[in-house]
Amino acid sequence: MVYFDNNATTPLGQNALQVYRLALEHDWSNPSSPYRSASRVRAKLEQAREELASILGFHKDQLIFTSGATEANNSVFAHVASNEKKEGQCLLSPFEHPSIIEPAKYWFKDRLTYMPTDDSGRVDLDRTEQLLNTENISLVSLMAANNETGVIQPWQELAKLCLNQGIFFHCDATQWIGKLDSSAFSLCTSFSASAHKFSGPKGLGWLACKEPIQLQLGGQQERESRGGTENYPAIASMLVALKDAIKDLDGLIQGAEWRDQFEQSIINAIPETIVLGKESPRLWNTSMILLPKFNNLSWVGKLDKRGISVSTGSACSAGNVKNTSLVFSMGLSSNEAGRLVRVSSYSDQNESDWQNLALAFTDVFKELKDEASHSSVISL
Amino acid sequence: MVYFDNNATTPLGQNALQVYRLALEHDWSNPSSPYRSASRVRAKLEQAREELASILGFHKDQLIFTSGATEANNSVFAHVASNEKKEGQCLLSPFEHPSIIEPAKYWFKDRLTYMPTDDSGRVDLDRTEQLLNTENISLVSLMAANNETGVIQPWQELAKLCLNQGIFFHCDATQWIGKLDSSAFSLCTSFSASAHKFSGPKGLGWLACKEPIQLQLGGQQERESRGGTENYPAIASMLVALKDAIKDLDGLIQGAEWRDQFEQSIINAIPETIVLGKESPRLWNTSMILLPKFNNLSWVGKLDKRGISVSTGSACSAGNVKNTSLVFSMGLSSNEAGRLVRVSSYSDQNESDWQNLALAFTDVFKELKDEASHSSVISL
Repeated sequence: MVYFDNNATTPLGQNALQVYRLALEHDWSNPSSPYRSASRVRAKLEQAREELASILGFHKDQLIFTSGATEANNSVFAHVASNEKKEGQCLLSPFEHPSIIEPAKYWFKDRLTYMPTDDSGRVDLDRTEQLLNTENISLVSLMAANNETGVIQPWQELAKLCLNQGIFFHCDATQWIGKLDSSAFSLCTSFSASAHKFSGPKGLGWLACKEPIQLQLGGQQERESRGGTENYPAIASMLVALKDAIKDLDGLIQGAEWRDQFEQSIINAIPETIVLGKESPRLWNTSMILLPKFNNLSWVGKLDKRGISVSTGSACSAGNVKNTSLVFSMGLSSNEAGRLVRVSSYSDQNESDWQNLALAFTDVFKELKDEASHSSVISL
Repeated sequence: MVYFDNNATTPLGQNALQVYRLALEHDWSNPSSPYRSASRVRAKLEQAREELASILGFHKDQLIFTSGATEANNSVFAHVASNEKKEGQCLLSPFEHPSIIEPAKYWFKDRLTYMPTDDSGRVDLDRTEQLLNTENISLVSLMAANNETGVIQPWQELAKLCLNQGIFFHCDATQWIGKLDSSAFSLCTSFSASAHKFSGPKGLGWLACKEPIQLQLGGQQERESRGGTENYPAIASMLVALKDAIKDLDGLIQGAEWRDQFEQSIINAIPETIVLGKESPRLWNTSMILLPKFNNLSWVGKLDKRGISVSTGSACSAGNVKNTSLVFSMGLSSNEAGRLVRVSSYSDQNESDWQNLALAFTDVFKELKDEASHSSVISL
């Protein structure tokens, strides 16, 4: 299988698997128990927290392990909405993941304002800054990089503006972590990520937050922020996955060349193909392609038969692509939304995989055209 | 290591580990993605949900995978409190786990009523029934079996009463699942469990709930009850762990004999030792011992040096034993609370382990007495 759906999930890395297995075998004690094997796990857990915090430029006491970014994102909106005077606006980009948009709607109801955007899938920073200066804002939420287009948002600039004005700034960094340098997140009040997007295990992520925050009641774990037995084996695995990614970050980032060549190949071979957000800074691994013809599920199905996995959009909204925030915010028609195919690589994909992907798109285009002309002949 | 702290956590079972590894290798795709390998994981996930639901006597559409019982328990209190008229009482036992008591306090504030209890660590069903008939009750929460004493609560009887009166009945079944028959939970409106208490992986559990309920917003996963990528590899592992436990349930339950012999041995060897809840129906694996002398941390430490892991109480409250709900509700003094030691077995412990445990307690008692007389001689 040639796998190009890494923005949906990644397989567990080899080192991450090895560390997971060892920890499941040796370090499974409950860190809160009162004997030495448990204290050893407690010490390793806190060491892992410290290492991760150091990579992320956050203080270890502000790092809370969660079941993933969805839990972390939910908790931020509940936290801010429960602690403010029910007057301020929640300002967020229209590109956000559903785990941001839905909690924002639930907790802030009609007090939601969407950031102005430009045509390239990016937030318009100048006009957003004007909103910060004129509106009463309780919470600003902007993703680091978009899950569908890979477009990088001006989150660092906006985080600085919020920091200066004392406004809570949350960043959903799920697609950024493990793909780009992670040392600037101290600009944010809080940020979230999921391990399974960077070759770590599923069911694990974090919220880093400068304010005391409550996620799950009923236990002294995570400095009383989140009750529940800590999943040290998975945490150890996640840390190794991230360290592996960071070790080779420059190598990973150079993969943008292969992605760019792929895009040029299919633009040449399939006339009128458009790459969304191509003119913006983007993640090196992602390509959101608006094809000129044929439904995206036909493309996905035919590529699948060739052993290639790609997506119609974010996995969270697959089968429901017309409703994605991306489609709305980039002004695509319903017809265009049905022709979107997302391709996303990670550390396992190499230049030859990208080249084969381009050839496969070209082949599928020919096959779909042949089928269409065949069926139109039959229908004559 | 001879491990007698299974109520805190269990090691991952061999089959559960094997299934986990295979799923991590082969079934890691995002179940929401639109290609065949993902559809296969989706199908396996739904098959696992159906198998588990069948074991639990619940409908598969009512079974929501969570990060554990703590998340599940939290969600029930948020759900009921958000959907009632802020008038009804929340009725719960004083023995509940902190992940029940803390959310109950948070969501119901001064609308909390504790069930009357008897001296044996059990809820008094008759007097609780009177409360049901006379008070305006929105939610009743009773654990199936206590994590500290192993005492089995009359949850089935109370669930039936609530069912008849249309009152929401939640059962924290964390210590029951994998230890006793699980087919009667359809009496409950909702119930929760954690995989790592029955040799499944950490970071996973479930809420089974007959009412539509919202846990995490932002995704269509878990029938829109809980957004976030499903952790199929861990789910597959949990299911195998539970099936393994159930296959040998009669064998496990017979372990009560070994536990009873152990208790008799230490009562004989250490005069004035009391076993809490001994006169009540109890889980076959648990013994909560009130020792006549010496601080429990001294006992735990000396047993630890002999390679035996036991606890001072629930891991969630270790180091804070005076504040456990058990101590309050069974009327123990602060001094007595400091002499509690909990012993809990599971499928890995055999008769000879229990016998060695009894011998170790006897040895430690002698050692502690010797040290005490030695230090009193020195201080003369």
